[in-house]
Order: sequence, then structure tokens, then C-alpha cells
Amino acid sequence: MARISRKGRRRVAIERKSTGLDQIPWSQAHSPYAGFEIADADAMQAIHETSISILKEAGIRVMSNQVMDLFERAGALVDRDTQTVCIDETHVAAALGTVPKTFDMVARTPSKKIQMGGSAMNFGLVAGPPNTHDCIRGRRAGNYEDYCDFIRLAQHFNAVNIIGNQVVAPVELAANTRHLDTYLANIRYSDLVFHVSGIGRGRVLDGINMMAISRAITVENMRDVPGVITVISVNSPRLLDDAMSDGLIAMAQHFQPVSITPFTLMGAMTPVTLPAALAQQNAEALFCLVLSQLVQPGAPVMYGAFTSNVDLRSGAPAFGTPENTKANILAGQLAKRYGLPYRTSNANASNCVDLQATYETMMSTWGAVLGGANLIYHAAGWLEGGLTASFEKFILDVEIIQNMKEFLKPLQITKEDLGLEAIKAVPPGGHFFGEAHTIDRYKSAFYTPLLSDWRNYESWQITGAKDALSRATDLWQQALQDYQEPKLDPAISEALESYVAHRRETIGTGEP
Amino acid sequence: MARISRKGRRRVAIERKSTGLDQIPWSQAHSPYAGFEIADADAMQAIHETSISILKEAGIRVMSNQVMDLFERAGALVDRDTQTVCIDETHVAAALGTVPKTFDMVARTPSKKIQMGGSAMNFGLVAGPPNTHDCIRGRRAGNYEDYCDFIRLAQHFNAVNIIGNQVVAPVELAANTRHLDTYLANIRYSDLVFHVSGIGRGRVLDGINMMAISRAITVENMRDVPGVITVISVNSPRLLDDAMSDGLIAMAQHFQPVSITPFTLMGAMTPVTLPAALAQQNAEALFCLVLSQLVQPGAPVMYGAFTSNVDLRSGAPAFGTPENTKANILAGQLAKRYGLPYRTSNANASNCVDLQATYETMMSTWGAVLGGANLIYHAAGWLEGGLTASFEKFILDVEIIQNMKEFLKPLQITKEDLGLEAIKAVPPGGHFFGEAHTIDRYKSAFYTPLLSDWRNYESWQITGAKDALSRATDLWQQALQDYQEPKLDPAISEALESYVAHRRETIGTGEP
Repeated sequence: MARISRKGRRRVAIERKSTGLDQIPWSQAHSPYAGFEIADADAMQAIHETSISILKEAGIRVMSNQVMDLFERAGALVDRDTQTVCIDETHVAAALGTVPKTFDMVARTPSKKIQMGGSAMNFGLVAGPPNTHDCIRGRRAGNYEDYCDFIRLAQHFNAVNIIGNQVVAPVELAANTRHLDTYLANIRYSDLVFHVSGIGRGRVLDGINMMAISRAITVENMRDVPGVITVISVNSPRLLDDAMSDGLIAMAQHFQPVSITPFTLMGAMTPVTLPAALAQQNAEALFCLVLSQLVQPGAPVMYGAFTSNVDLRSGAPAFGTPENTKANILAGQLAKRYGLPYRTSNANASNCVDLQATYETMMSTWGAVLGGANLIYHAAGWLEGGLTASFEKFILDVEIIQNMKEFLKPLQITKEDLGLEAIKAVPPGGHFFGEAHTIDRYKSAFYTPLLSDWRNYESWQITGAKDALSRATDLWQQALQDYQEPKLDPAISEALESYVAHRRETIGTGEP
Repeated sequence: MARISRKGRRRVAIERKSTGLDQIPWSQAHSPYAGFEIADADAMQAIHETSISILKEAGIRVMSNQVMDLFERAGALVDRDTQTVCIDETHVAAALGTVPKTFDMVARTPSKKIQMGGSAMNFGLVAGPPNTHDCIRGRRAGNYEDYCDFIRLAQHFNAVNIIGNQVVAPVELAANTRHLDTYLANIRYSDLVFHVSGIGRGRVLDGINMMAISRAITVENMRDVPGVITVISVNSPRLLDDAMSDGLIAMAQHFQPVSITPFTLMGAMTPVTLPAALAQQNAEALFCLVLSQLVQPGAPVMYGAFTSNVDLRSGAPAFGTPENTKANILAGQLAKRYGLPYRTSNANASNCVDLQATYETMMSTWGAVLGGANLIYHAAGWLEGGLTASFEKFILDVEIIQNMKEFLKPLQITKEDLGLEAIKAVPPGGHFFGEAHTIDRYKSAFYTPLLSDWRNYESWQITGAKDALSRATDLWQQALQDYQEPKLDPAISEALESYVAHRRETIGTGEP
């Protein structure tokens, strides 16, 4: 297909009445199933105790004096020379006493409120890749046009509940104000909750301010139902940078949630053994939890996990491995033990959208779903170990998310569902196609796929024998044509633009 | 690659010392996890009661007088005019009292004994497709050369535990003696337990006899540890053909196991609702269970399930759907309730080895694993709704099976696994690559994939940017080169050949 300009694309969408793609309605998924457990209570206790020993005996190195002050006032052991903070179980217990078990989030459309915690399950857009790829234009550096198209796709497909922090880096834009452009695109092209950049106080506050403007409420009012979230990464092992702690503090002060996520590749940032990796990850997450509650008791926090492994022969990171599946489940067991909302990720290490990308994604996703994750980050579009955001992978992932959401629909067992009379009405060797029991239900009985082609081989051959990758290329283009920009009050739009213009100037002068 | 003749291929294998592909050692997988449940006890009871009502009020139509005689003697209600047999809960309870909860199977290598029942998990080669496909030679009718190559691959890869009934139909061979050729290939090219054809008494007895010869034991001795199994399909809804019941009777008389498997596509062979489909499938399976125990109390039986759905807009069968995932789990809950070994399937509806084939396979496999299946039939090589056995899909499936087997390895949590000292030894922001704790474990710490390529984009590009499908094409060819035929005693080989020669003549004359 020739590249269609943005303007031309919108005209096409208006001119032809789109039939629209089959997709699920907007919904907040909830898991009706009890969490799957792969470790017993003794094992969980052993991991917990090891984490406490790490915090007490080794501690966490912090770069920020403000953080050291906070911990010192709370009675922690702070060594200013080595910048090391050691805490014990009482600090963890106190933080667990004030942190909320669940919280809601919403952007500018009240009906799209999502829950974090409990049985809720949210799927997020990939975040962070420097590159982007599709099968028409190939692999290229991240840019703002692709950024905006991904936001449109996330808005279009109801499978996606939340936008991650920068789906691709728009590298042509100035690094110090890029976050303003991306926040603006998030708000303009979608009405979804999004992740702000947690690197430093300024980027966080811009996100909070712009979300408040878009909801026509004050920043203070946004404390009741937060509108933005951020990822606070620990520089594993055991190091918390000051940019990260500044971001955490700014978010906590405004009661906006942080997802504390040690990024731990077993064999590199942790020992090779899964229990050790989890004990270390857990220690790092609990430390930041304590910090958030020292800043602001009651500030919302997610227990984040991103534990996979490296290929020990090459040192290359591996994702969607069976070890990652287990880690996703075990971290869910830990989050549940602490009563914390749980965030994990969906990832794969493939260099293209192929069989490997698919089965690794499924290993990762099943671990996340069985682990009862409330937020599956990077759920749509992640490729190449997170170095590329892929348009075809996005479509594949929407199909996978829709499959999982259908799997999460609770089983109904009424007398009619059990169908004894319907079964008795069809003779041995007969069929149920024409039965009233079937006809009454056939439209909604089964999940209708987005990407799967269930026609027989001959019909499939006649129409070009397109494989799923080729169909995915068609689908993201069609979705961009069908996409409808959500209406934004012109006054709000103007207020956002003037905020951004003002901030561009301020940041330009180096003013905080 | 130019086609290498069988002879040439073997020479290559001998001439060059193969490095061998990375694969897991031969093992019987056991699930360390409690079964996953998606329905509660009340729901399971409701399904059970509906099944009993189906058996009591509607019954099963049988074509065989012998079967009607057996049920009549057991006090069942038999209507000779409509060939309908109605049974009640007492018949089911009696059968459940005599059927074994677990049983072992073995072919000619004692160390490769497998268990059916309990926590054991076995993965089987695809069975039944009329066509075969690979990316070099394309799609073609099943034939004996491809048949033998698939048996070699199943033998070569330890991921596969058991051979299904005819991986592809060798259509160039006479239909009435084809089973002899395929049994011979199973025994000559592998030392795995295999499925015999359950269609009629003759094919069953040939399989039993040939397996006994290959093990150098009598047919009577094979009662202790069976060597063959068969699938008894019900012609859903509620019809048992005489060829199937003849096969079931012959197997039961010789204490060889049958896997009773109603093949039920919701919306076609059952109502569209999952509880109704399960109630009907369950009724059909329980009926055949009763029959087997009437023939021979204590004969081994597997509870089989193959419930998926049709596309209700086209009538096309769909596999690997979220409904199929749920059915695989629920059938596992039913099998567990009755204390029966459980067989289910891995299937997909894609017309080629692509993203769809992969995610549908994963949906199906995860359902089977979570359902605690003791036998996952069609686990390796199934494509195109079962109409094609694919060489590349076989490799993809071996990778998926290996991932699942790694996931099933129980977590070890010793003090050393928790690694407190190792964690304390690495400074904040450091890495664990060079640590003794890492070096001591790095060779076996993580699963080594067969098909995944974890190199970075640049390295992958330099070596041709092969996607996983293309690598799979390389891998099955390499595996066929590396393949080693398991040694067979010349006397046994001769005995098998003379048995086959004799039977060819007998069948040719129409003698039973």
C-alpha cells in the first residue's frame, strides 16, 4: 500500500462508512479465578525473610540526600559515606499498614475508569523502544508521527486499557521537552490513563498538570482518582538513582501511583537462581514502598516485577522464557501476600514478528494472567527485547489480549446453559446447527477473532493465502483509517497548548 | 536444499560427527502444581448430574448387538428397535470402582516407561492428517516416506513421549493393510509406545501382537504393562459405531488402554454452551467407560476430551480458541473428579505455520497443562485443523513442549538457592556474571531453547535475518541427519516381518 498522509487518511475514514473490525467492547477485565500458585507458604516465607535480611544486612544505596534524610528520621540505619540505607521488618510492616490495597484511575472519560488491585486486569501499550517497525516501511528510529499512530491504535482497540511511558522515543524532538509532546499526543489522540516519565520531578509534574487540565479539575482534586502513573525502576542490584527517587517523591506527594519495578535479569542483575532473584527484587520493591509511605502515607503504589533471564552463553537478555513465566507467577504470589496491586510485563526477545515472538509472548502473558497481574505492561507492541515497537506485533498482541479476556469471562452454569432438553432434542448422529438453543445464542456464543482466519485451505488459497503476519499489516492500516479522534473541548485543548508553550520556554531557560 | 535420499542422509549422519541439537533429556514430565479450577464443586456436580440425566433419559445409540447384549446383562434399558441403551448412576459408579486410576506403558526400551494418570504429563505426535507439508516441498498427500520421517523425528526429540495413530495417512498403500506398514515403522524407527487404529478388531489385534513381538513377550504378559493404546471416538451426539465398539472390546479384553474421546465441536455436535458440551461429552465418555468395564473389569481407560467450537458464521471448525482452553481445563476437572487418567489435545486451525498457528497452539496447550492432562494428543505437528502434518510445526511444537516441561520443573528453595550471601557479595549497581554462585550454576541454570534466537538485531541480520519458521526448516532437516535408528534384535525384526507378511496374505483373502 502506498503511504497515506494523515490528512488523506482522515478523509478516507469520513468518506467511506467503515464496517469496523471485530473487536471486544471497552471493558475492565476481572479474573474470576483464584491465583495460581507454584510455591507454598513456606517457600514464600523463605523468600520474604531473605528479602528482609538483604534490606537489613546489605541495604540499598541511594543517591539522594532527601531520601537519606527521610529514612534517617524514620529510624533507619543510614551510612552517609557509602550512601547506604538499611531498614528492617518494622519499616516494611508500617508501610504495608498505610498503602492502599486497590485504587482507581481515570482520564477524561469517566466511563473508562480502571481499577488497580483486587481481581482487575489491565493491558498496557509497549513503552520505551528507541525504534519502530512495520512490514511496509521497515525498521526505523522512533519519531513523533509513529508515536501518534500508536496512540491512535491504543485508543482504537478496546483491548488496551492504559498507555505506557513513550511507546517509541520521538528522537527528532528535543530530549528535555519531548515528554510535553508525548503527553499532548496521549491526551489529544486518546482518552486513556497514561504513564508519565518518572525521571525527575519536572517531567512528573508536567504529566500531573496536563492530566488535571484535560479533566478540567485541579491537581488537588486529582488525588481522589489519579489520572497518571509512573514506573520507578531500581538500578538492580540495590541502587536507587536520585532522578528516580525525585520522581517517586513528586508522584507520592500528589497521591498519583507509582509502579515500583526492579528490572532484574537473572544471571546479570541478580544471582541465576529464581528464589534469589525474587528475594532481591522483592527487597528492592519493598524499600521503595517504604520510601513512598514515608513521603506520603496512603500514596498509591503498585508492586512491580520484571524478572527474566540472560542467555548465559552470550549474555544476551531473554524474555518470555519458562523462567520468566514462573517469575511472573511468583511475583504475583508475593504481591498478594503483601496485599499490593501487582504490575508485571509481557515481553519477548525475537528480532521480528514470527513464531518465536508469539510463543515467547504467550509464555510471558500466561504467567502474568496466572499470577493475577493487575497491570500487564508492554502488553501490546513489544518486539526485539524492547528495542522496537512493532505495528504488526501490536495487532498480534490485541488478538492475544482479546483471547485472554475471553478466557477470563466467568463460566455461567444455569439450567439453560446445561442444555439437557436441547441435547435430548437432537437424535444420535445428528447436529445442532438448526436448533432453537443454538440460534438463540449463536451471535454471541463464541469469541470472534480479530486476526485468526478459520476458513478452509481452499478458500484461504483463493483469496491469496495470506498468513497472519500479512493480515496484521492490513489490520493496523484499516484501524488507522477507522480511528475516530475522541472529542476534546476547545477550551481544554487551548489550555493544554498554552501550558506546553509556557513549559517549553521555562525548560529552555533551565528554570526548574 | 536439494532433497537428500534416505541412503545419502544416513551416510551423512555417519560421516560427520554431529554436534547435535540442544534438547532436553528423555524424561517423564510430572506436574508439581495443583490442578487449576475454573468451575466450583457445585458447577461440577451440575454437569455430572446433567450427564447422568442424558444417559438415563436419552441414552446412547449403539450399532453392535454384542454391546447391547453386554448392557442388557448388566441391567441397562436396551431398546433393540432404536438400538438405544440407557444406563443410570449405578452403572457409572460400578465402572468407576473397577477402572484403574493410573497405569504404565512401555515399548521395547524399559527405561522409557511412561505413566498415565496422577501427575504424569505425556506429549504425543499428531495423528490422522491426510496431508503433509514442509516449506521445501510444499503441501502433498500423505505417504509412507513422510510417515517414516515423522516417526524418526518423534524418536529423535525427547519432547515427544508417544506416537499417535498414523501421523499422516500413507495413501499410496492399501487401506486394509496400511496399519501393518505403519506399526512396523513405529517399531523399527522408534522405541516409543504408540496408538493402534481402533477401527475394528483386526487392526487392534495386529498392534497388540506386533508390540508383544517387539518386546519379546507374550500377548498375555503385555497385560501387566501395556504397550499400545487406542482412541475410541464417539460419533457425537450419542452414537457409538460398531467398528469403534469392536476396537474397544478387543483392547479391553487384552488389558490394553483405550482413550475414550468424544470429538465435540460446540454448535455442531453439541449445543453452543460450554456446560452443555461438557455434560454431553462427559455422558458419552462415561458410557464407553462402563462398556469397557463390562467387557473386562480393571481394563485401563483414559478419560478423553476434544471439545472446541465452530465458527458460527461459516460452520468452520475452530481450534485453540479461548473456549477450547476452558474446555481443556474443565474436562480435567471432570477427569479428576472421577479419578481417571486424562487425555486431551493440542490443536489449531491455521492453514500455515504462522502467528495464528502459534497462539492457538499456546491457548490449547496451556489449557491442557492447567487441566492436568496426562496425555496431550496431537501435541507435535498438527496444522490446518488436523488436515496436515507439518514438519516445521513439529519443530515449533517441540520448542513449546520443552518450554512447558521446563515450566513444570518444581521450584527448589534451598538456602543456596535463596542466595543471600551471593547478593551481599555484589555491590550496588554491580553485576553477577563473574560470581562463584553464577559460575557454579550457569550451564544448567536456564532452559536452552531449540528454536529461539536470542542474539541482538545486528548479529541476527549478519547471519541472514532468518525468522523462526526458516530456522525450523533447517532444524527438522538437521534432526533427520542426526537421527539414530534404535537397535532392534535381528530375530525380532525377522519375526515382525514374517508376522506382517502372514497378515498381509490373511487380510488379502478376507480371512478375519
